Amino acid sequence: MPVFSLLTNAPTFDAFHSAYLVAAYSRPSREGDVFLCVVDPGVGSERAGLALLADGRWYVGPDNGLLAIAAKWSRQAKWWRLPPPPADSSLSFHGRDWFAPHAARLAQQPTARGWLESASPAVGDDWPLDLAEIVYLDHYGNALTGLRAAGLPSHTRLRVAGENVMPAQVFSTVSPGTAFWYENANGLAEIAVNKGNAGQSLGLEVGSPVEVLAD
Amino acid sequence: MPVFSLLTNAPTFDAFHSAYLVAAYSRPSREGDVFLCVVDPGVGSERAGLALLADGRWYVGPDNGLLAIAAKWSRQAKWWRLPPPPADSSLSFHGRDWFAPHAARLAQQPTARGWLESASPAVGDDWPLDLAEIVYLDHYGNALTGLRAAGLPSHTRLRVAGENVMPAQVFSTVSPGTAFWYENANGLAEIAVNKGNAGQSLGLEVGSPVEVLAD
Amino acid sequence: MPVFSLLTNAPTFDAFHSAYLVAAYSRPSREGDVFLCVVDPGVGSERAGLALLADGRWYVGPDNGLLAIAAKWSRQAKWWRLPPPPADSSLSFHGRDWFAPHAARLAQQPTARGWLESASPAVGDDWPLDLAEIVYLDHYGNALTGLRAAGLPSHTRLRVAGENVMPAQVFSTVSPGTAFWYENANGLAEIAVNKGNAGQSLGLEVGSPVEVLAD
Repeated sequence: MPVFSLLTNAPTFDAFHSAYLVAAYSRPSREGDVFLCVVDPGVGSERAGLALLADGRWYVGPDNGLLAIAAKWSRQAKWWRLPPPPADSSLSFHGRDWFAPHAARLAQQPTARGWLESASPAVGDDWPLDLAEIVYLDHYGNALTGLRAAGLPSHTRLRVAGENVMPAQVFSTVSPGTAFWYENANGLAEIAVNKGNAGQSLGLEVGSPVEVLAD
Repeated sequence: MPVFSLLTNAPTFDAFHSAYLVAAYSRPSREGDVFLCVVDPGVGSERAGLALLADGRWYVGPDNGLLAIAAKWSRQAKWWRLPPPPADSSLSFHGRDWFAPHAARLAQQPTARGWLESASPAVGDDWPLDLAEIVYLDHYGNALTGLRAAGLPSHTRLRVAGENVMPAQVFSTVSPGTAFWYENANGLAEIAVNKGNAGQSLGLEVGSPVEVLAD
Repeated sequence: MPVFSLLTNAPTFDAFHSAYLVAAYSRPSREGDVFLCVVDPGVGSERAGLALLADGRWYVGPDNGLLAIAAKWSRQAKWWRLPPPPADSSLSFHGRDWFAPHAARLAQQPTARGWLESASPAVGDDWPLDLAEIVYLDHYGNALTGLRAAGLPSHTRLRVAGENVMPAQVFSTVSPGTAFWYENANGLAEIAVNKGNAGQSLGLEVGSPVEVLAD
């Protein structure tokens, strides 16, 4: 059964940072799952709609870079351009009127029949493979980076907001109040404070730079 | 397959403004869809429960006006009075214990069998067809009016909070920071600021008056 | 059809107060329903995973007390220890990788086959049957206690934050602005202010003590 996921609280208007979330949060899924992704500063502008098949997962969304990192992180990626929105669709809710019906059809029938293959998307091809910035703060204040933890040696320290943050395997191995980073459940390096709010105590926001300290 | 929708963040306790949201947000649906609507300042009071069939859509909710505008905006509307809540239902959660089971049954079997037809609801019949007020602020700060955009000439200006707001087709045609109004995806005139927060920058709240400027 | 419920806004990190919510909010359900419950200050620590069958309802969650009150409030309760998390599961998202698959399997096939029966959980067995404290504040500011209303004489007054709160059957029988307590839709004694915010006006928070006034 396919999974539909709409990132409702990804960084508003910010396809760049959201692209790393789309890539990470769609990884623990199965072949045939369908992701409808909409973070769209250009609502109503003329950007294209895209479908992406990446390692067996389908993605549908705008050509603003939002799907670009999911493609980069996959072994196999193939792009299609969606046909234009139907004539009776709203100008401002492409998620509902243009993208969702395509995602729903893919969930029923996973083929790209009738779509135009596309070499690569217009936006996002030049974005970094891993992003050394905070890309998201969850409601506990945990600060997700755009760095895949698998690419960092396990003793790596991260430097954010003027502080060095040590690695730990998981919250309960660190004393309350201490900042640490760990590989989160979706494979990203995430900065957290055990029983605390990392975003507030370190003063982090989406876009805050992260430095990987060689050792 | 029927759609169930519970307006979880409509204006609290405010059936009047919420009624315009129910009417607008239930329009892009299909015949046979069922809407369970609960905004209820009179929880536990003796108001009746109603079912409404409006242009093929079913609505279930309290007789406090919440469904009144959905009926007014439809070509055909028919009302029924629900039987009283079951004896073992809670006094304070009619949404779950009284209305939801009726909505669920309608979704399975769309008939009003056994219900008493009702000429019109007790509340809401005298509410204006279109409401020149802000009825909702979404989490981006977009301010929805109770005015159907289809009834406004396309060059209409709206006056809110002492400022004249020009029409635009969609966000991306307006420079960032500028307030405009447009027909939103559910047909309402909505006041927005491209990449900004209209509610905050104009100081709007639910109930703020909107003036339609003749020209 | 089974109901899955994840308490997404229960008191953060606080299995003790959340346990009374789990017990109360899972009562209005049917035999065979499955509740996946995760409030987990010990993410990644070595606490066990448990399954509970209480009066025909299944519960899956961590052995940190979260399920203890649901067992205490039932006539019949039986516990099992879950097998350890799969080797490829994340260390920090046991809800998704360890508990949810077990809950999903129970929803398909309600048997404990292959699980080790457990006499009682490690945590929560000594927690009070009813808790005379605020256990939750909802987004209206209503303050839920851990007291089952069925155990309180109907004329009982509750004392919170230095004020005596009278009983009422339901919101609409009390004048706006007045604090009262009533049996909420899940059987808990709940302190509310008609058309107001009880939590703010009385200065309540999770853990605030509640005194049952004998009379």
